[in-house]
Amino acid sequence: MWRSCFVQVTMREFLAVDAGGTSTRAVLIDETGSCRGAGRAAGGNPTSSGPARAADSVAAAIALALDSAAADPGRVAGVLIAHAGGHDDYEAGVRERLDRLGVGAPVTRAGDLLALFASGTAALEGAALISGTGAIGGAIRGGALERTVDGTGWLLGDSGSGFWIGHRVARAVVDDLDGGPRTALTAALLPLLDLDAEPDRAATEGRPAVLGALVRALYALRPVELSRFAPLAFAHPDDAVAAGIVREAVGALVALLDRVRAVQPDGPLVFGGSVLMEGVLRLPREQMAPLLAAAGDREPIPVADGLVGAAVLALRAAGVTVDDAVHARLSASVRAALVRAASVRAATAR
Amino acid sequence: MWRSCFVQVTMREFLAVDAGGTSTRAVLIDETGSCRGAGRAAGGNPTSSGPARAADSVAAAIALALDSAAADPGRVAGVLIAHAGGHDDYEAGVRERLDRLGVGAPVTRAGDLLALFASGTAALEGAALISGTGAIGGAIRGGALERTVDGTGWLLGDSGSGFWIGHRVARAVVDDLDGGPRTALTAALLPLLDLDAEPDRAATEGRPAVLGALVRALYALRPVELSRFAPLAFAHPDDAVAAGIVREAVGALVALLDRVRAVQPDGPLVFGGSVLMEGVLRLPREQMAPLLAAAGDREPIPVADGLVGAAVLALRAAGVTVDDAVHARLSASVRAALVRAASVRAATAR
Repeated sequence: MWRSCFVQVTMREFLAVDAGGTSTRAVLIDETGSCRGAGRAAGGNPTSSGPARAADSVAAAIALALDSAAADPGRVAGVLIAHAGGHDDYEAGVRERLDRLGVGAPVTRAGDLLALFASGTAALEGAALISGTGAIGGAIRGGALERTVDGTGWLLGDSGSGFWIGHRVARAVVDDLDGGPRTALTAALLPLLDLDAEPDRAATEGRPAVLGALVRALYALRPVELSRFAPLAFAHPDDAVAAGIVREAVGALVALLDRVRAVQPDGPLVFGGSVLMEGVLRLPREQMAPLLAAAGDREPIPVADGLVGAAVLALRAAGVTVDDAVHARLSASVRAALVRAASVRAATAR
Repeated sequence: MWRSCFVQVTMREFLAVDAGGTSTRAVLIDETGSCRGAGRAAGGNPTSSGPARAADSVAAAIALALDSAAADPGRVAGVLIAHAGGHDDYEAGVRERLDRLGVGAPVTRAGDLLALFASGTAALEGAALISGTGAIGGAIRGGALERTVDGTGWLLGDSGSGFWIGHRVARAVVDDLDGGPRTALTAALLPLLDLDAEPDRAATEGRPAVLGALVRALYALRPVELSRFAPLAFAHPDDAVAAGIVREAVGALVALLDRVRAVQPDGPLVFGGSVLMEGVLRLPREQMAPLLAAAGDREPIPVADGLVGAAVLALRAAGVTVDDAVHARLSASVRAALVRAASVRAATAR
């Protein structure tokens, strides 16, 4: 009795944060891999939200996680924040806000690619492939990122990404209205920009009037926003133009994976990002075949985000060994804590 | 004697202006197609220079043309200005400046595509293909622009343009440094951005340090500025990557020409723009073959700009018939007047 009570009291606790562009998730975990609390806030990536707002989001998610576990902030032994990019003001801003919350523990930073990989597996060797708005691959060796491939952004790289696909969708629609191959993408895209889905095709100088309006509307977007049209390509499997774009995207992701696998042929393969999760992995098996072939004999492990991985990295940073059992406990308990946090939020909202 | 003197006195004179993005050229011509004076000023396109500065350039070029012919501004019977795009402030600004110069004649506007076509031929039926920073094709019928194809800008179209080629060059160099196919374009492009042409390839995370610097330098450009890298593709015919980009560009221009020819299969074909003039038309004949095939049995007529065409359109706007003889006289005398104007400028500068 005395012994278990002692263990309870001295069990170390850690905070792990996955600070993404759209939302920030934080969990409070102990060294056995049990998740005690979770919180969610707005986007926490310093590049997309700005360093101050991003640091606010990180602090808000952490405050909710501590609160949901009725935890003592002073007892937290370490904090790990996983995010893309980096920014001095962000690191300083997070530190300052944590001090204000009473969390004095040291903060470690991890990349989003490594966190994503660790979300999917306890292995220390393997590869990760993300295709969301951008596309990037990573070879992991000895639990660290050995090599990244691509991730060079919409203008210079990101082949097979949401931007890359959405850009091709937009170009195909412009081309259709300019006398090029007809595609079902046209009637699907135009209403998304409040344009008439059934344009009058016999207008001035042989080009429909809607073409000019479409071109103006598309140039008014920031280029990366073209990624919002990526789902249209997957939604029209019977359209030759759309199917061609998807086929090319799969080809680009195969090339990316091949280059990662050349560096690290061993270990599991983790997939993340909306294009892979909601697009490619839902394709008929034969359309995914080139990607599965590039993956070798390994079934890709799809993960929604880097939150479990951030928890894994938080434990490892503190010297805790994360094996398959601890990884499984983390995965299950983090998921349960997020559901609890969401239902508390829903109840509070009522 | 009396008769020829009378003709001399009543001969109508016109001003024709080709207002481009880089420079504005103006000529004073008479109704026989003889060029009496020429002037050149800075960029006169309202979109790239702004309406006020563009109108200043148009007025400056016109003033020089009138001056070089010691002409009476009040005797000018009509003014034609060829330029891309359009802008109310520009039209009003040009009018105001012409009034100040004493040119009270009406101003007619023409598109740059039609002016380019008319620079190459007196025909009223035919096609024009421009590939400069952008790419556009036009079908001409009855002396008017019947249909344009593409010209929808760097993000949405302009396939086979200088941007399109330069963008691929930049991506190929980024890809090379990221472990992709090696290309001679890398050593050619890096010095243009003041980066080390012989990068250390064994650096952090398996990527050379220069990759990050290159990516930052390229994102610091406006996207259309990538067109400055287009000449590199043509300059490396023995490099597989560069040759592939050129081959694809020719293919894109063939597709553009095919679409124009579907609307207007008859008449001559006029080529313009730096990519066609300095790149494609200097390729070995076999590499141009697909484009020549798309051109049918017609040898493309290359033209440097739309100045002669602006003069043609100025005469036609006044009811003057421009046949092959008048066209030939215009071409020769405009060229001679520009040379004279340049040598006067050079002499003044000494």
